[in-house]
Amino acid sequence: MLNRVRSAVAHLVSSGGAPPPRPKSPDLPNAASAPPAAAPEAPRSPPAKAGSGSATPAKAVEARASFSRPTFLQLSPGGLRRADDHAGRAVQSPPDTGRRLPWSTGYAEVINAGKSRHNEDQACCEVVYVEGRRSVTGVPREPSRGQGLCFYYWGLFDGHAGGGAAEMASRLLHRHIREQLKDLVEILQDPSPPPLCLPTTPGTPDSSDPSHLLGPQSCWSSQKEVSHESLVVGAVENAFQLMQDEQMARERRGHQVEGGCCALVVIYLLGKVYVANAGDSRAIIVRNGEIIPMSREFTPETERQRLQLLGFLKPELLGSEFTHLEFPRRVLPKELGQRMLYRDQNMTGWAYKKIELEDLRFPLVCGEGKKARVMATIGVTRGLGDHSLKVCSSTLPIKPFLSCFPEVRVYDLTQYEHCPDDVLVLGTDGLWDVTTDCEVAATVDRVLSAYEPNDHSRYTALAQALVLGARGTPRDRGWRLPNNKLGSGDDISVFVIPLGGPGSYS
Amino acid sequence: MLNRVRSAVAHLVSSGGAPPPRPKSPDLPNAASAPPAAAPEAPRSPPAKAGSGSATPAKAVEARASFSRPTFLQLSPGGLRRADDHAGRAVQSPPDTGRRLPWSTGYAEVINAGKSRHNEDQACCEVVYVEGRRSVTGVPREPSRGQGLCFYYWGLFDGHAGGGAAEMASRLLHRHIREQLKDLVEILQDPSPPPLCLPTTPGTPDSSDPSHLLGPQSCWSSQKEVSHESLVVGAVENAFQLMQDEQMARERRGHQVEGGCCALVVIYLLGKVYVANAGDSRAIIVRNGEIIPMSREFTPETERQRLQLLGFLKPELLGSEFTHLEFPRRVLPKELGQRMLYRDQNMTGWAYKKIELEDLRFPLVCGEGKKARVMATIGVTRGLGDHSLKVCSSTLPIKPFLSCFPEVRVYDLTQYEHCPDDVLVLGTDGLWDVTTDCEVAATVDRVLSAYEPNDHSRYTALAQALVLGARGTPRDRGWRLPNNKLGSGDDISVFVIPLGGPGSYS
Repeated sequence: MLNRVRSAVAHLVSSGGAPPPRPKSPDLPNAASAPPAAAPEAPRSPPAKAGSGSATPAKAVEARASFSRPTFLQLSPGGLRRADDHAGRAVQSPPDTGRRLPWSTGYAEVINAGKSRHNEDQACCEVVYVEGRRSVTGVPREPSRGQGLCFYYWGLFDGHAGGGAAEMASRLLHRHIREQLKDLVEILQDPSPPPLCLPTTPGTPDSSDPSHLLGPQSCWSSQKEVSHESLVVGAVENAFQLMQDEQMARERRGHQVEGGCCALVVIYLLGKVYVANAGDSRAIIVRNGEIIPMSREFTPETERQRLQLLGFLKPELLGSEFTHLEFPRRVLPKELGQRMLYRDQNMTGWAYKKIELEDLRFPLVCGEGKKARVMATIGVTRGLGDHSLKVCSSTLPIKPFLSCFPEVRVYDLTQYEHCPDDVLVLGTDGLWDVTTDCEVAATVDRVLSAYEPNDHSRYTALAQALVLGARGTPRDRGWRLPNNKLGSGDDISVFVIPLGGPGSYS
Repeated sequence: MLNRVRSAVAHLVSSGGAPPPRPKSPDLPNAASAPPAAAPEAPRSPPAKAGSGSATPAKAVEARASFSRPTFLQLSPGGLRRADDHAGRAVQSPPDTGRRLPWSTGYAEVINAGKSRHNEDQACCEVVYVEGRRSVTGVPREPSRGQGLCFYYWGLFDGHAGGGAAEMASRLLHRHIREQLKDLVEILQDPSPPPLCLPTTPGTPDSSDPSHLLGPQSCWSSQKEVSHESLVVGAVENAFQLMQDEQMARERRGHQVEGGCCALVVIYLLGKVYVANAGDSRAIIVRNGEIIPMSREFTPETERQRLQLLGFLKPELLGSEFTHLEFPRRVLPKELGQRMLYRDQNMTGWAYKKIELEDLRFPLVCGEGKKARVMATIGVTRGLGDHSLKVCSSTLPIKPFLSCFPEVRVYDLTQYEHCPDDVLVLGTDGLWDVTTDCEVAATVDRVLSAYEPNDHSRYTALAQALVLGARGTPRDRGWRLPNNKLGSGDDISVFVIPLGGPGSYS
């Protein structure tokens, strides 16, 4: 992910384009955390200096100390060294001999080819018990009703500009989700629609009782019915925000949270699978060979209009350095007065406009595909962390343009009878940069059919096959796929979740 | 459409809810243009006072003077009276004997059941010739290349709070599109990619020549390639904005443009169909029985997050009267301190929050379905006009929340061999409120199969059948459908465009 955070501005200056309005200030507090500008088209570049970790010896020590891999990998010190080896790039999975992951989930990961010191992906897989708070609805609880709820949880966190944010999110995000669900334990287990309003003191009659509301209701159409499902979605959304607030609070207390991370999270709760994505990781279901997308990527290209609108409404966020307009290439000073194609925040098409002085500023959004950037710096637009991220050679913060909110999609497991070959595949962009959905589906078919349906190791074998297929093998001074194209030089992490779930098949 | 612009605030006050912060000021300049609060659930209500037209006798005259139906209907004075008769609700179509509409397009319309004085829908169907401006690219024009371009144009405009904006847009929007296309005549006819930059003086070499740009290009990834198609999309988008600017300029000169309108526009140009929608009209293609949606509706529900974000970023637009948060029903003062479900602009799910004083304000977005409203006033969020629209009993303008920008979808006619039964159906919400896409497809099949494929009147018959099917027949003190449900009491207008196009079949 590191190559998604870089300075195009710096390149621009060195290559003779219009200079940015501010001079480079190497002594800015954030200059140290700006990553080196790696060549984005060369993810297989030789081992480079680590991101922010290598800026000073002290920081390097701190980064090394905080380096970790998911605990479920049960890595020995030797295993940790192998997992951290950019040259060998050994694929890591939980040991056969250890405790299986819930649902016999398969997992595999591999470190990048050298673009950052450590693997900046993190992963988490947990069964989380949520104890309900005392009765929130005011209705005395039936003794027969369960006191708590369990949810299954899988998370992939793809860090950039350091591994701190990903590491922190992998440790804490599911706890925030649990906190958000605590108030809902009773409500989610009650088949009647959720109360719209909760009394301040238990035992008070629920004021959302429609009989209290006939007056205002008459104008306001009927009250909206809110589903149990949308309460879980709201809980996950707010958990992402609280995770972000916690990271920010930590920064305020002077503990730097290194970098930022994309977060892709799956929850199984009461028959439904919730897939929450903030960033450019991806989740797909492969069911009977059919592909069902369960997420979409949030990048400067897919979120162009949101970003431009924000820049348009809050021009102070652009400083005097950026324009919210998009141009198909950099505007040159000598082109002043000529007419160039542009897109404004309301447009999906292009039109010509006369170039004015302001158009010579650097565009808020520029580039295409993996090279697309916000403020010439970052290539993803949603995620956690990045609180100290600044535009290179400037004090302009980028965080206001980044959103911590995930898009949550829901899949009802009970609506379809799943067979052992139906899986939910989660991968960081290291997988998807070089692998299409169809190729993943083909690998699912090929690998799973080689194992007995009740062989639980098949899902780990599948995750390993996917990671290996995206990494490739070392050949011609690089990692190459069988078709001789470049493999992914990024960190690659994959979960394979069998959709049978607990007890659905043995 | 009138019932989409009403005052829920006024109802609220009268029904005992929390009072709005401002008292009713009947002498406000905009009070006169606020429509009477019609019962939204009774579109078949008996003939009521017209929208703003009936506010004063002078205004009534003005409204009557400006009342018109599409010229292609070729209505005699007697025909105009019949078209304006709320009791009979006779379906209107172009006469068999007159000149056929381009492409043998079918059209039918019917006036509302009395909710506004006149039919506030308008329609336009034209073949527009675009003469190119002098060479814009600087390259001498080949003598063999055509000097101009033709496009086919269909527009439906669904007015609210008066017919002025719809009438003006139906007369002028295609001219704005023509103006926008003038610069593109030469470029669209040239198969090479559009130039990114146009020289100020013809004959100057095109500065977008890549050889000029090697320096800055190296950092900025490659320049974006812009398609011809996206230039047409941009031209249509900007034409909507210019139409809106013209309406605003007219208002500034003291000529009131009465009300606002949704706009659904189709352009056929160089083999492609462009469907531009701003509002809650709808376009679908029925091809070989299959339904292809060509638009989506823009309402307070579908645009909730855009509206809430704007209110959040620009709280001054909410005055002290509204909150950008959404609640599932009105919050009561006595519920202060309790916890109620809410949605913020980043959320798709719901969560509980403690009710504070600010939450007692009226929500920016409220209601469901046809009763959903922005600022308790308007039920559509995109369109033209509405420059003077204010919140009832307040001076707070609503226009900042409305967008004039359409969503443009493109359909390549050359990618599929169309048969005479393949059609593009455009309808105002009067059709779609009571008719599903599938019902339209069934009517397409039923009506067209009753006519010879080369009988050009079949498309008019189909449009009439669709309008009749949505209007119903007078029975039990209302207009009723065969299933005894209420028919649409709204204005209903339908275009049926055969997709064979000119010369594709005879």
